[in-house]
Amino acid sequence: MYEIPGFTDEHHIPSAIAVLTSGGDSPGMNPAIRGVVRAALHRGIKVFGINKGYSGLIIGDLEEMNSASVTNIVQRGGTILKSDRCEAFKDPAVRHQAAEVLKEKGIDTLVVIGGDGSLTGAHYLTLENDIRVIGLPGTIDNDIYGTDDTIGFDTAVNTALEAIDKIRDTALSHESLFLVEVMGRNSGFIATHVGIACGAEMIVIPEYEVKVDAISSQLASNREQGKGSSGIIVVAEGPKPGLTYDLAKQLKNHGQQPKVCILGHIQRGGIPSGHDRILASCLGASAVDYLCAGYNDIMIGVRRGKIVDTPLAQVIEKSKELDEALFQRALLLHK
Amino acid sequence: MYEIPGFTDEHHIPSAIAVLTSGGDSPGMNPAIRGVVRAALHRGIKVFGINKGYSGLIIGDLEEMNSASVTNIVQRGGTILKSDRCEAFKDPAVRHQAAEVLKEKGIDTLVVIGGDGSLTGAHYLTLENDIRVIGLPGTIDNDIYGTDDTIGFDTAVNTALEAIDKIRDTALSHESLFLVEVMGRNSGFIATHVGIACGAEMIVIPEYEVKVDAISSQLASNREQGKGSSGIIVVAEGPKPGLTYDLAKQLKNHGQQPKVCILGHIQRGGIPSGHDRILASCLGASAVDYLCAGYNDIMIGVRRGKIVDTPLAQVIEKSKELDEALFQRALLLHK
Amino acid sequence: MYEIPGFTDEHHIPSAIAVLTSGGDSPGMNPAIRGVVRAALHRGIKVFGINKGYSGLIIGDLEEMNSASVTNIVQRGGTILKSDRCEAFKDPAVRHQAAEVLKEKGIDTLVVIGGDGSLTGAHYLTLENDIRVIGLPGTIDNDIYGTDDTIGFDTAVNTALEAIDKIRDTALSHESLFLVEVMGRNSGFIATHVGIACGAEMIVIPEYEVKVDAISSQLASNREQGKGSSGIIVVAEGPKPGLTYDLAKQLKNHGQQPKVCILGHIQRGGIPSGHDRILASCLGASAVDYLCAGYNDIMIGVRRGKIVDTPLAQVIEKSKELDEALFQRALLLHK
Amino acid sequence: MYEIPGFTDEHHIPSAIAVLTSGGDSPGMNPAIRGVVRAALHRGIKVFGINKGYSGLIIGDLEEMNSASVTNIVQRGGTILKSDRCEAFKDPAVRHQAAEVLKEKGIDTLVVIGGDGSLTGAHYLTLENDIRVIGLPGTIDNDIYGTDDTIGFDTAVNTALEAIDKIRDTALSHESLFLVEVMGRNSGFIATHVGIACGAEMIVIPEYEVKVDAISSQLASNREQGKGSSGIIVVAEGPKPGLTYDLAKQLKNHGQQPKVCILGHIQRGGIPSGHDRILASCLGASAVDYLCAGYNDIMIGVRRGKIVDTPLAQVIEKSKELDEALFQRALLLHK
Repeated sequence: MYEIPGFTDEHHIPSAIAVLTSGGDSPGMNPAIRGVVRAALHRGIKVFGINKGYSGLIIGDLEEMNSASVTNIVQRGGTILKSDRCEAFKDPAVRHQAAEVLKEKGIDTLVVIGGDGSLTGAHYLTLENDIRVIGLPGTIDNDIYGTDDTIGFDTAVNTALEAIDKIRDTALSHESLFLVEVMGRNSGFIATHVGIACGAEMIVIPEYEVKVDAISSQLASNREQGKGSSGIIVVAEGPKPGLTYDLAKQLKNHGQQPKVCILGHIQRGGIPSGHDRILASCLGASAVDYLCAGYNDIMIGVRRGKIVDTPLAQVIEKSKELDEALFQRALLLHK
Repeated sequence: MYEIPGFTDEHHIPSAIAVLTSGGDSPGMNPAIRGVVRAALHRGIKVFGINKGYSGLIIGDLEEMNSASVTNIVQRGGTILKSDRCEAFKDPAVRHQAAEVLKEKGIDTLVVIGGDGSLTGAHYLTLENDIRVIGLPGTIDNDIYGTDDTIGFDTAVNTALEAIDKIRDTALSHESLFLVEVMGRNSGFIATHVGIACGAEMIVIPEYEVKVDAISSQLASNREQGKGSSGIIVVAEGPKPGLTYDLAKQLKNHGQQPKVCILGHIQRGGIPSGHDRILASCLGASAVDYLCAGYNDIMIGVRRGKIVDTPLAQVIEKSKELDEALFQRALLLHK
Repeated sequence: MYEIPGFTDEHHIPSAIAVLTSGGDSPGMNPAIRGVVRAALHRGIKVFGINKGYSGLIIGDLEEMNSASVTNIVQRGGTILKSDRCEAFKDPAVRHQAAEVLKEKGIDTLVVIGGDGSLTGAHYLTLENDIRVIGLPGTIDNDIYGTDDTIGFDTAVNTALEAIDKIRDTALSHESLFLVEVMGRNSGFIATHVGIACGAEMIVIPEYEVKVDAISSQLASNREQGKGSSGIIVVAEGPKPGLTYDLAKQLKNHGQQPKVCILGHIQRGGIPSGHDRILASCLGASAVDYLCAGYNDIMIGVRRGKIVDTPLAQVIEKSKELDEALFQRALLLHK
Repeated sequence: MYEIPGFTDEHHIPSAIAVLTSGGDSPGMNPAIRGVVRAALHRGIKVFGINKGYSGLIIGDLEEMNSASVTNIVQRGGTILKSDRCEAFKDPAVRHQAAEVLKEKGIDTLVVIGGDGSLTGAHYLTLENDIRVIGLPGTIDNDIYGTDDTIGFDTAVNTALEAIDKIRDTALSHESLFLVEVMGRNSGFIATHVGIACGAEMIVIPEYEVKVDAISSQLASNREQGKGSSGIIVVAEGPKPGLTYDLAKQLKNHGQQPKVCILGHIQRGGIPSGHDRILASCLGASAVDYLCAGYNDIMIGVRRGKIVDTPLAQVIEKSKELDEALFQRALLLHK
């Protein structure tokens, strides 16, 4: 599935690897943990699991893992290591403390599975301390620079689609219009993929201005083409809460009768899809390959079907751009 | 599965039967329609499908159905006949017009699949006009007097549980507390069944006063017993919108950090469960049995495993009471 | 949901309760275990979990459970206590040994969750030894006398339906005929419920003779009515393996081109449905009620919506009969 | 998601496009049809749907489609155009007849969605007649040269995983070993992806020799590592029926007690995954782009994240090789 880099030089075998999950949980974190653990054990490297992300790291809440520690987790949603958002880790002194905890246990490398904020923490940890780090993109939002795909995105899209397939039953039965809000504060990745895959009448995302007039006339045109007056509009939640309700009000002023559904947290959980289990397994195992080859301060992701690394400094600074061609294709296809 | 009444007297064979779905759609309406159609055809009775509930009836939007009309619909959510909430039908003159539409087509009997409001319309239609009617309880809320079970309730409970199974992944990963709002404006049937089946920490329903203190101390007690600080509280939406957000605020004042999920319309749609397909099929076919045996102005439901009839006048007037023993059992089991 | 008996006399509080699961696993065994454990703890009674059914009991593989032992299992398929088919338990000496293991731990009562064979073991255990036992019907087959419903049946029906909903896509796309074999060695409960709920063209069960001619002419009649030549025939596996393949051969001789699908073990596992979680929770908790009220040598089940007890001797001797009316209704509805 | 080629030259606008699905159905054929239809209409090109693949084409069973023809199909399994395996199409005279049918309707281009055999038919059709053709890879097996991914593969992998997640419940509860047969006559793509994603103990595929000794010693090693004696071995069906039963017999001779599950046709159907809906939508729409740019006798697929074309002659002659690195990774991870 993914072209894997073949390293010839492996003179940097870690003394021991620690792994943690951080930030919002995403489906596939468990197979990613399993990938790190099994690949480390395969090479005879000790591996430790840290509980509750950076919060657990600081207080030394970690224990050694063996092969059985990750048995029967590949299909579980959430993360067996638990996760947390840790404000304290923004303080260099706290990061120093974390590095000391690791060194005390004889651990010199850390794998961090999480989103933007979590990877930022990993970058500064290695910059300031003698701990090598590798980040893996674990977030449903797919808004991480340096990778085409993040662990959990495919599952979240499928979860949203299952929900919308149910909502469509009602929409068709009542010939009504639904605004369905999916996750995506700063980005329309989930909304665009969900929108094209559910055959949405319209997709509203933070990257483009909302045009209520255009939505109204599109809906009118659908009716004329005999496609009925039911419809699904997929809306990314956007930076401010309440966007979807605002849009519903504006559409009411245009004579529409939209109903609102907020999919919310159901998108974060659930059994990971096959795609996410394979992606996570490959990235988890590759993290160990990269560590053994001497890499540091990078995130490992996939680009155009290959496993690739990107410096964490770039991952943090740059924004991933939406695939506009896909968005345009979605617009074309719903007509 | 259900004990079926055996009628000996069948001197009231309808000239033709019409069937409609009305009010909020519920999963299982399609197998109910199929049951009516196939059972009518089996006896050689003509059967007509009315589009969009009472709204379609008034304007004569109906057509004859054959066996193939209901092929491959038993597993479809929503209703192939579409549905509507029809304010106009509260007017006796409109109901008279509806009766005239039916008579003109040679139809003397009507099967109405829907909730409380829809069955009220059916009752007055037959009271004032020479049309026999049979109601079937089609609503996810299970709040209809005269039946232990309504078409769509089992599916809605399963849909809510699937969503909560996903939310629990996040709750466990973050050790956080979730308030999950399920449907139920005036009744806690969905909330109680979902609450017991998902192992909820607490169930909040319109039938009982909410005690925020009790919830808080329950959560504290869970932590002491080593059950972790994650939790799911299932909340019936209640009569006024915003109840769940209010409760979240109050819990914040008690030092909790609850997150809110509103399941909303995903509970209405979806592929009907096996239970609902069988219930709907049996009730649909039984409606034809009862019509042929001369019954009128009744709803057919199930009680203690038997198919039974209840006068529509009673169905409309009386309220179904929550099974308090089940609610108490739920409280006991989550401890 | 279920009317629960209210006991006034409770002079037989067990010293400690043990619980085990035995025979083929069924979805809902976990909430049943949870029901026993939580209800026992609620009354202050010690409760022990036995691993691997009677095999574990014999060798004393059991440990005390607390409230946290059964946290987060209500939605898990299989059984956390594991299960086994134990030939050795047919020997009275082995049963005596099992009783001694229990007494040594101060345990005087046992709850057995399983099918026919497992309940037979429980009956003889109490007959010959001073251990009180209560059985709960845990099997997907629903072929247990004394209860309308068994733990796991509803989930198995839904699992089979999900599979058939997929097979139907191919059947419709290719206008082909599928024989789908579901579980049921001696009984057609699963096949009948699945058949009515999937809209099967025909249902083949051990209770009635297979008439290949009738199937052929039914399929021909469907084509004439414009219902296409695709079709699903649901077949209970029956007493001898290979029945479905035999039937396929015979249908080929009648000019049909059937394909065969054996659903097999996927029917045993999976996340329990809401219905099974509630049934299992109520039966598990009720087992403790009955024990405290002094009952022994009974199975607890549900009949016509009430929780009822049946002597194990009857459960073992008598056969549950198929609901023929439901079977006839299925035949009527697919036409 | 996929980089789309931007064509500047569009001097080859078809007079009208026909589309058909052929061979085994696969989930995503419907969104592929929708992609072709909507993209054609968007450019003002007439589009016709052919029923039952080449069989329907020969007899002129086709009709014009509009935007509403493909409304509400994006989430449906199977194919609304139905499919067939057409032996007659191997005859050049029959292909000539098919070309005449198309020309008579004013159609000069054809989009064929199907597997290897279907694409072979398309290649010879255009070679011998004045009809331009474009093939799209529609098969769950993913065994088509010229594309990393086929329409339906992702859904089939997820379907197999859902089934195995259920089987694992029983495997764990009984500490038993299951051989699960997935589709794949000549290739181990499904087996490898399913195997890695379900955490299989072993994967058996046609590309490599089966070593029963190795399986046995692997299972023994698992037990020693405390991973229990339950296990899942994923087996590709292989070229001859009965392979999995043979393997079970051999394992019995090595002292194992394996049970066999044949997943069979459930892998072909079902609601397409988000991934397959997007892939199919993009390929369907791109087929129209390529036709307008003048292409002929090619298949459109995806390689390393880009939409690419491959001459049909190559598609037919060459075999796609299994990704051995992924297979090795799977072996590593289950240890």
